[in-house]
Amino acid sequence: MGPHPTVAAIRLAVRRVLHDVLGTSEDPHPLVLAACSGGADSMALAAALAFEAPRLGVRAGAVTVDHGLQAGSAVRAEEVAGRLRALGLDPVDAVGVKVGRQGGPEAAARDARYAALDATAERRGASAVLLGHTRDDQAETVLLGLARGSGIRSLSGMAAVSGTGGRYRRPFLLLDRDTVRQGCLAQGITVWEDPHNHDPAYTRSRVRHEALPILEKSLGKGVVEALARTAQLSRDDADALDQWAADAEADAAGDDGSLDAKRLHALPAAVRRRVLRRAAIAAGSPPGFLFARHIEEVDRLVTGWHGQKALNLPGAVAVRRANGRLFFSQA
Amino acid sequence: MGPHPTVAAIRLAVRRVLHDVLGTSEDPHPLVLAACSGGADSMALAAALAFEAPRLGVRAGAVTVDHGLQAGSAVRAEEVAGRLRALGLDPVDAVGVKVGRQGGPEAAARDARYAALDATAERRGASAVLLGHTRDDQAETVLLGLARGSGIRSLSGMAAVSGTGGRYRRPFLLLDRDTVRQGCLAQGITVWEDPHNHDPAYTRSRVRHEALPILEKSLGKGVVEALARTAQLSRDDADALDQWAADAEADAAGDDGSLDAKRLHALPAAVRRRVLRRAAIAAGSPPGFLFARHIEEVDRLVTGWHGQKALNLPGAVAVRRANGRLFFSQA
Repeated sequence: MGPHPTVAAIRLAVRRVLHDVLGTSEDPHPLVLAACSGGADSMALAAALAFEAPRLGVRAGAVTVDHGLQAGSAVRAEEVAGRLRALGLDPVDAVGVKVGRQGGPEAAARDARYAALDATAERRGASAVLLGHTRDDQAETVLLGLARGSGIRSLSGMAAVSGTGGRYRRPFLLLDRDTVRQGCLAQGITVWEDPHNHDPAYTRSRVRHEALPILEKSLGKGVVEALARTAQLSRDDADALDQWAADAEADAAGDDGSLDAKRLHALPAAVRRRVLRRAAIAAGSPPGFLFARHIEEVDRLVTGWHGQKALNLPGAVAVRRANGRLFFSQA
Repeated sequence: MGPHPTVAAIRLAVRRVLHDVLGTSEDPHPLVLAACSGGADSMALAAALAFEAPRLGVRAGAVTVDHGLQAGSAVRAEEVAGRLRALGLDPVDAVGVKVGRQGGPEAAARDARYAALDATAERRGASAVLLGHTRDDQAETVLLGLARGSGIRSLSGMAAVSGTGGRYRRPFLLLDRDTVRQGCLAQGITVWEDPHNHDPAYTRSRVRHEALPILEKSLGKGVVEALARTAQLSRDDADALDQWAADAEADAAGDDGSLDAKRLHALPAAVRRRVLRRAAIAAGSPPGFLFARHIEEVDRLVTGWHGQKALNLPGAVAVRRANGRLFFSQA
């Protein structure tokens, strides 16, 4: 008798990613790490990795991050590490981090976590780090991006492959959370649920437990799938438009880096605004402080030119128009 | 003393659109109609049109559609028409329609309504028909599009200008519903609330009264604005990608309309899929039945070619690859 269908689905997802890692790795026996919080999704991931890796000649390890945000978290991290070792994974690292405050508690924890995962991957010489994000996590990420209202890039959620050299892989991005959790149950895997996941002080927790259930009630059961599909389509669209903008920028740029206003004017608005944003960032404007209203102001130097003065953008970047060209410079 | 600030905002929005209509119309005294259900948003629109039009030499009328879905609806439509005439609008038409069943009750009512508005605009020789959709309606439309999960075009909501020759104009698309409703109150305008707007049998009603309030609670007060901004950005992005796809299709097409597979392969996935969709529709595949999975199958003739057989698409359209080219044909 084969494994439970959910376990088969989970293992297949991991096997596909391992094949892909093998296809792109120089090492015939690459090391792949599962990033694991001890929760159901990442424990299922670790178990599937432990099962599949030896069959493909892949070395399999794991890493768990102790964010130090709760009393006893270090002990718990060691417990998780023990369970990961019991699955046959080796090496297994429990890494403590110090979470700062930059960008709010969720962003700060995420930044600290990825820094620790990067450092561990480097230290261990890992070819890939697997992450247990499911289609439901993806849907939540799209809703969080939607709330920013900053365009299709922020609707594109998490990539199946990301990070330096495509280090991070998300095998479960097309699997729903229920499947993964049932797979855990079917294998009798002990899991630990992060209480933050249910803490309404966290935006993601509110999205998960309040917003998505109501959206499903209002719009129908397919909402999670629709959001995940929106992520994929938006990502492809954003990539295509970024490529167009890069080509258009090269086309409009002179030797001094200034941009030909007439060529910019001929571009569709969506492409022109991306070119202007690229030029502002290249001149030193920090992306996080550069908002749509700044780009719109710059755009008026192209589409509504009536001899305006130079504009100031965040990061002490000035933009002026002279002789039919746009000049971006930093003070 | 000037008008209440909300009334000033409403009138300004209408005035801007009238200036735009005057700028594009051959007739120095064009006729502009307000489409009016009798509800607060469209009564505010009608009142603002009645106020602004004479000052700009524009002729102002109105049209109200009786969907015939409730007992006494014809009487009510005549009451609304009477109130519109009392605002000084002329001509005012109350038009009865017969709502079919195609696409569900909301889509069928919308189709019947726009057909009646189109017919009235033609009959009266109107240059423009104003619609009272607010930023909140736009946010609802984006959420409804999101639930389809069919990409950024369905996230782009309603256009400020749409219809044959840009006939339909939506002056309130950047105003929130509260502003418009307060403007009604401030002017003592009698309004009639369509009970369908509160009927949870209608998806839009559930989105308005359940989904959006919870999203605001989970994600913060800016959600409506973020959704409306997403609509605008998505529309511009979708327009740019459509333009690229049209150019790419022309570039890849031979005299017989077949497409060069190598040129298609070189395109970003988002553009290639749009080209393939265009070609399928041009060959006779009905857009409403052509889903992402169909286009993905066609795409594999380009990106995963291993001598596949011809594919069948909805509308009896066949696609085959031969001599490095894709041929779309209808049986």
